[in-house]
Amino acid sequence: MSSASSTFAKNPGGVIKCKAAVASGAGEAMVIEEVEVNPPQPSEIRIKVVSTSLCRSDVTAWLSQAQPPVFPRIFGHEASGIVESVGEGVTEFAEGDHVLTLFIGECMNCKQCVSGKSNICQKLGLERKGVMHSDQKTRFFVKGKPIYHYCAVSSFSEYTVVNSGCAVKITKTAPLEKVCLLSCGTAAGLGAAWNVADVSKGSTVAIFGLGTVGLSVAQGAKIRGASRIIGVDTNPEKKEKAKAFGVTDFINPNDIDETVQQAIKRLTDGGVDYSFECIGDTEMINTALHSCCDGWGVTVTLGVPKTNPNVACHYGLFLTGRTLKGSLFGGWKPKSDIPSLIDMYLKEEIKIDDLITHNFPFKDINKAFDLMVAGKCLRCVIHMPNE
Amino acid sequence: MSSASSTFAKNPGGVIKCKAAVASGAGEAMVIEEVEVNPPQPSEIRIKVVSTSLCRSDVTAWLSQAQPPVFPRIFGHEASGIVESVGEGVTEFAEGDHVLTLFIGECMNCKQCVSGKSNICQKLGLERKGVMHSDQKTRFFVKGKPIYHYCAVSSFSEYTVVNSGCAVKITKTAPLEKVCLLSCGTAAGLGAAWNVADVSKGSTVAIFGLGTVGLSVAQGAKIRGASRIIGVDTNPEKKEKAKAFGVTDFINPNDIDETVQQAIKRLTDGGVDYSFECIGDTEMINTALHSCCDGWGVTVTLGVPKTNPNVACHYGLFLTGRTLKGSLFGGWKPKSDIPSLIDMYLKEEIKIDDLITHNFPFKDINKAFDLMVAGKCLRCVIHMPNE
Repeated sequence: MSSASSTFAKNPGGVIKCKAAVASGAGEAMVIEEVEVNPPQPSEIRIKVVSTSLCRSDVTAWLSQAQPPVFPRIFGHEASGIVESVGEGVTEFAEGDHVLTLFIGECMNCKQCVSGKSNICQKLGLERKGVMHSDQKTRFFVKGKPIYHYCAVSSFSEYTVVNSGCAVKITKTAPLEKVCLLSCGTAAGLGAAWNVADVSKGSTVAIFGLGTVGLSVAQGAKIRGASRIIGVDTNPEKKEKAKAFGVTDFINPNDIDETVQQAIKRLTDGGVDYSFECIGDTEMINTALHSCCDGWGVTVTLGVPKTNPNVACHYGLFLTGRTLKGSLFGGWKPKSDIPSLIDMYLKEEIKIDDLITHNFPFKDINKAFDLMVAGKCLRCVIHMPNE
Repeated sequence: MSSASSTFAKNPGGVIKCKAAVASGAGEAMVIEEVEVNPPQPSEIRIKVVSTSLCRSDVTAWLSQAQPPVFPRIFGHEASGIVESVGEGVTEFAEGDHVLTLFIGECMNCKQCVSGKSNICQKLGLERKGVMHSDQKTRFFVKGKPIYHYCAVSSFSEYTVVNSGCAVKITKTAPLEKVCLLSCGTAAGLGAAWNVADVSKGSTVAIFGLGTVGLSVAQGAKIRGASRIIGVDTNPEKKEKAKAFGVTDFINPNDIDETVQQAIKRLTDGGVDYSFECIGDTEMINTALHSCCDGWGVTVTLGVPKTNPNVACHYGLFLTGRTLKGSLFGGWKPKSDIPSLIDMYLKEEIKIDDLITHNFPFKDINKAFDLMVAGKCLRCVIHMPNE
């Protein structure tokens, strides 16, 4: 995995033929097939993907239970790579730059980007239709037929094209096969704790769902000095791992004779200061709100709903002083803020490696999907072939 | 209405017989009848009510569509009065003190009260069962039969008993027939803007429902220097009054060819910074969230639901950066903070008088209920008879 020094096929201005994992329908196994990747258009870059990890939201979109099905499609949005070529007008990147892809971009010009207080870019926000932001078209084709993108990233391909606002240049000293996790999951969790909830020293925290995002929330809360970090997960295997990320109390809802909120209120004299929904279960947002204390309890919802996208809860939870906030990519302004997270990783101030439970060559990508569906992994990193 | 200098029946330690407006069932007209008011128990005070205004939440509880019916009952929770006698251990009040009643109290000792960041007192919070906090019993009787309280205040009676933590002493220079509005509605609106939303200078605001609470939110936003205050109400008569309280744009949902959120987004380049639900319609919370801007929009819900108590909204509203908060009594710590609001009124920094549309003698209390149900009033102040 000496990705930083690998050579690769280049064809600036031309079409690249390469392998990509194409999903043909909801829940259908990916098939690695040859795709044509168009050259980057103005303000776009083409990237040779080096490492890409599987995030639960790829699986949620692939299963299409709470989102309209968009197929055939190339998933993947948590990735590192090397710039192969740049489109017209791109001065920020050059061939050979190391980058992370960004599933929400930063145009640097819209009301949100210039606000200093939001990462919800109005030009390069979450793309749901499977096309590029600029022209609503795809850059992938198989025998002339367009293949849809995912979140305007589509990293389950040897090469992909993204808007230059949807990638961030990183130092070449960062190991691409690890830091790809900062492209989504790990950064999302840390940011939810630091930017969105703003967890304070000595406070109490509950985290629903101890996947990569939930454990990253725990890590963020621990670094902030939270006094008690309660992790909730139905998978007993998460308990030991969670300790390493700062979880002080583990609750398995299947092992207790009371409701989760009752257990949390009992442990914390009335409820935690902050609770985080990291499962993608909107019903759990209700439980997370109930687990917060009166007066100043804050619930942050991070998960992308697997099935029901509607939040439903009693107004009394708000009237008694609770706040509900959402967190998209942890509130990070992705281009501006990610380099500092890379630095923190290189200085060993934050952990990533322990979140990687599996490594697979590209050809085994379906194994990662199987493990994620079964809840048997944290991050599976998929390593693209060197050429 | 020279209430400050009126004399009144006193019977420290004994039962007082007086008139009260007793509601016998959901939606049934009050009947003024003779009740026996027990003496204050330890930590309680008995108050001669001077003025009491009708709040929409009295009507909501009286109609009992979203709350269990509790009858026979004496409503009223927004009131001014004079201390008649004090129970054992009360040193904070003395006979003759002028007070406002508090529908949420401040015990000064619980985790919330000492926190400095919440008004959700754990001992003297919203009382819903119709009894006193201390012993779960009533202080009112008719021919030996208990009559339930409302919010542990029950000001639609010539005399009432409240916990000493559910009243605040005010200066005798304050006109009791006006400042009773600071006992709930006006303070609730101002506090929602100042304490809960923390409206900033130059920001944009939308207010759903221009009753006393909504207009007080507008007043609070105007004082904070909001650049645009959009008022939404289906009653066209609210338009002129709203201007006086700072509303710059009036939207009558019945008069437009687009949805309210579309109109608000159009007026504000994508949505307001803050929106306030002041109707008591949980469906409108959804509209209020939609009317906020991405990234940092905050929706504050103040209304007590008239029918459906459940909030339902799409998770995407939160994921794109919106926050939902509740406001109970505007976040004011009632005993600590109300005296400063009285001062502001006396210095003419805040307006109350213009919110009073009707004045009625106690015997006409049902007229106030009729007007409120018909949406034909802001505040009706009910003046208790001098004795």
